[in-house]
Amino acid sequence: MSETDKQAQPLRVALLGCGVVGSAVARLLTENSPDLSARVGRRLEIIGVAVRRPDKDRSGTGVDASLFTTDAAGLVARADVVIEVIGGIEPARSLILAAMKNGASVVTANKSLLAEDGPRLYQAAQDCDVDLYYEASVAGAIPLLRPLRESLVGDDVHRILGIVNGTTNYVLDKMDTTGAGFADAVEQAQALGYAEADPTADVEGFDAAAKAAILASLAFHTRVSAKDVYREGITEISAADIKAAREMDCVVKLLAICERIQGDGVDSKGSRAGGDPDGGGISVRVHPAMIPRSHPLAGVREAFNAVFVEAVSAGSLMFYGRGAGQLPTASAIVGDIIDLAMHQAKGGTSPRMNFGSLKKTVVPMGEVKTQFYLRLDVKDQPGVLASITKVFGDCGVSISAVTQKEATGESVELVIFTHGVTEADFQRAVTGIRELPVVVGVQSLIRVHV
Amino acid sequence: MSETDKQAQPLRVALLGCGVVGSAVARLLTENSPDLSARVGRRLEIIGVAVRRPDKDRSGTGVDASLFTTDAAGLVARADVVIEVIGGIEPARSLILAAMKNGASVVTANKSLLAEDGPRLYQAAQDCDVDLYYEASVAGAIPLLRPLRESLVGDDVHRILGIVNGTTNYVLDKMDTTGAGFADAVEQAQALGYAEADPTADVEGFDAAAKAAILASLAFHTRVSAKDVYREGITEISAADIKAAREMDCVVKLLAICERIQGDGVDSKGSRAGGDPDGGGISVRVHPAMIPRSHPLAGVREAFNAVFVEAVSAGSLMFYGRGAGQLPTASAIVGDIIDLAMHQAKGGTSPRMNFGSLKKTVVPMGEVKTQFYLRLDVKDQPGVLASITKVFGDCGVSISAVTQKEATGESVELVIFTHGVTEADFQRAVTGIRELPVVVGVQSLIRVHV
Repeated sequence: MSETDKQAQPLRVALLGCGVVGSAVARLLTENSPDLSARVGRRLEIIGVAVRRPDKDRSGTGVDASLFTTDAAGLVARADVVIEVIGGIEPARSLILAAMKNGASVVTANKSLLAEDGPRLYQAAQDCDVDLYYEASVAGAIPLLRPLRESLVGDDVHRILGIVNGTTNYVLDKMDTTGAGFADAVEQAQALGYAEADPTADVEGFDAAAKAAILASLAFHTRVSAKDVYREGITEISAADIKAAREMDCVVKLLAICERIQGDGVDSKGSRAGGDPDGGGISVRVHPAMIPRSHPLAGVREAFNAVFVEAVSAGSLMFYGRGAGQLPTASAIVGDIIDLAMHQAKGGTSPRMNFGSLKKTVVPMGEVKTQFYLRLDVKDQPGVLASITKVFGDCGVSISAVTQKEATGESVELVIFTHGVTEADFQRAVTGIRELPVVVGVQSLIRVHV
Repeated sequence: MSETDKQAQPLRVALLGCGVVGSAVARLLTENSPDLSARVGRRLEIIGVAVRRPDKDRSGTGVDASLFTTDAAGLVARADVVIEVIGGIEPARSLILAAMKNGASVVTANKSLLAEDGPRLYQAAQDCDVDLYYEASVAGAIPLLRPLRESLVGDDVHRILGIVNGTTNYVLDKMDTTGAGFADAVEQAQALGYAEADPTADVEGFDAAAKAAILASLAFHTRVSAKDVYREGITEISAADIKAAREMDCVVKLLAICERIQGDGVDSKGSRAGGDPDGGGISVRVHPAMIPRSHPLAGVREAFNAVFVEAVSAGSLMFYGRGAGQLPTASAIVGDIIDLAMHQAKGGTSPRMNFGSLKKTVVPMGEVKTQFYLRLDVKDQPGVLASITKVFGDCGVSISAVTQKEATGESVELVIFTHGVTEADFQRAVTGIRELPVVVGVQSLIRVHV
């Protein structure tokens, strides 16, 4: 078929899944069809929607009832563009791979699949010369992946700090503003629909870790999967920690951190820690962190998301918006469809980078340097501080501040801030401190990002 | 030449201009050449740099001295990609048009030219089937135009509020944080290199208006030029205004506002004001505005830029970063070059939208509805408030709050906030109020964005 004939044909769109997000995508496509087709220069036609129960009333989507089918594989075989909003690993992965093999481009919001098996999907898109778009997989409607992939492609991103999970941000924000404890704040989030009945994926950081893997892959032009990401959730954060942060003019946020470690991470023996032989390793991790209230990320309230990007030439950038929700997610997906359709109308695919040639090593968490906040209860007796600081010193951990809080009964609360230390050295010190007879208990430790 | 042969050839890059930004672009391209070429899949070769004085020492750019030339037209004729960083209208425009006619794609940071004659350039790019990229023209390195053009292409942007001029933001921020007056703050900005010796283009809002025209064109898929933009600078903003804003828990920012006006702007007679027959006009304006301190834009300090975008499905988004400077601007330009080169390596151009079919009317400022803050000195005598409120009432202006400040000598300061009113009605009321014998003088009026 010639180029001209091709452009006269509608672009055949297959939708896999019609849940909360899928039905919103269908509605946006049907309601705005003339406008979207005008922008693309070619008509978009939904040729089918794969669902488990085709008889359910889905008239709100604006899609003709006859187009709902249980035959996802058959639908994929007839499409120019496949939108995957089923979620999970299978059958999503097989359907996406089949679509690509068949020459169709794919739009997906499936962060779990991308984080688990992204490299295989990116490679398949390249091999099949089709597009794979997934803007909605991280930070919902916030245009983030495209800027990272395209606008910053000529720059050198050295760090990303992201609030990429709305549920945990809502919980931590409530704890900060109302003084609520973790459990109460989670209940509030559940009541408002910001947290699921089982909030594990959010509060334990699994969701954020998947997104961190996707972000690191794009920012550093390499391949990172969720299992490479160090992950720590917010379940251990107490009202007392939030209060301590407040006293330091800080807030606690669950951060997804992706950064280059260029030879400045040294282990306790003074030798270079981690990284490639050429000195370029990366760290990808998700954990709660105290950040100063003056940091742009500190002002990110409620269930909003924001991603702070530092690049060598561009300097500090921040992207802010709603990270989840039916319409924001659907907007990101429709944006991908239109962009991709415009490329197809021009007879090409989008630019893509060569991941393979730029493999970078993910540095183990033990070799990553951060600062720490440590809160512990100690016996109210002389010499305590000396024995604690000795343990730190022996482990090569340098202390920046110690504050003694009010005595409660026979014990006293100590708050300690360290300078930048490797995780391994710090954990070794904490193990030693726990064993000291003068230490009643370690209440909490939180990394500090300054 | 076949596709394969073409990809073996280097991409011939011509640089027009080698000032502050141009030399940084040259350096980024030469220093990172292998890495950038790997990302593109094709070697990038600077084939020449057009300058006025080719003999000047420019060895810092990494470009061979023999490549500097005064023959810009001859250089353009040999290039695949032309980077225009001369600035101004001519000869920049003629060179860009010649480049396109010759089949070269163009990257420019020239906001004045785009704001004055953008539609002609967009059309020329379309007619010649080449790319025209200009990410650096608005908000420096902040990836903003690409997200608007691509990520949000399937959504419906209804408002943009932008802090797009770093100089004025620095001045207003200093006035807010130190209590300095306008002139002092400008001097500080000049001392730090944030303001030019002649700061007119910044403080009078010309720079922001050019950027507003570019943003509105992209966001609303229509053609807006700088002359369509209502423009008011910050020279009238006094320390007293900043203090008044502070008392209201507000800050004053110079905002570039682009918004759809969909039938809810009514004039004083209750009929529909402005807009297309189908009810869809737009307003594009630059003026100082009071915004609440809780607004994400209020936290944008110093010379940073930020653009707040509201879209129907995506909700509120914000893009934040350095809006100017040598390296951030160069980063945006190099990002454009790489993106464009990737498209060329794939044998296509970037997607572009059809501006022509989507013309929208810019509503005259008089028909635009906003809220106002008004500060005036009145005689300290009975009946003053009654006569003032009568003028407002007669003009259809509804007042939301009046505060009487301390008396100074024989006069009293009044601070008045209005509900949303059309500019025309409000200006009519102010004219009437100035004429009242009880009014000593109108000190200031500032629009309020809530």
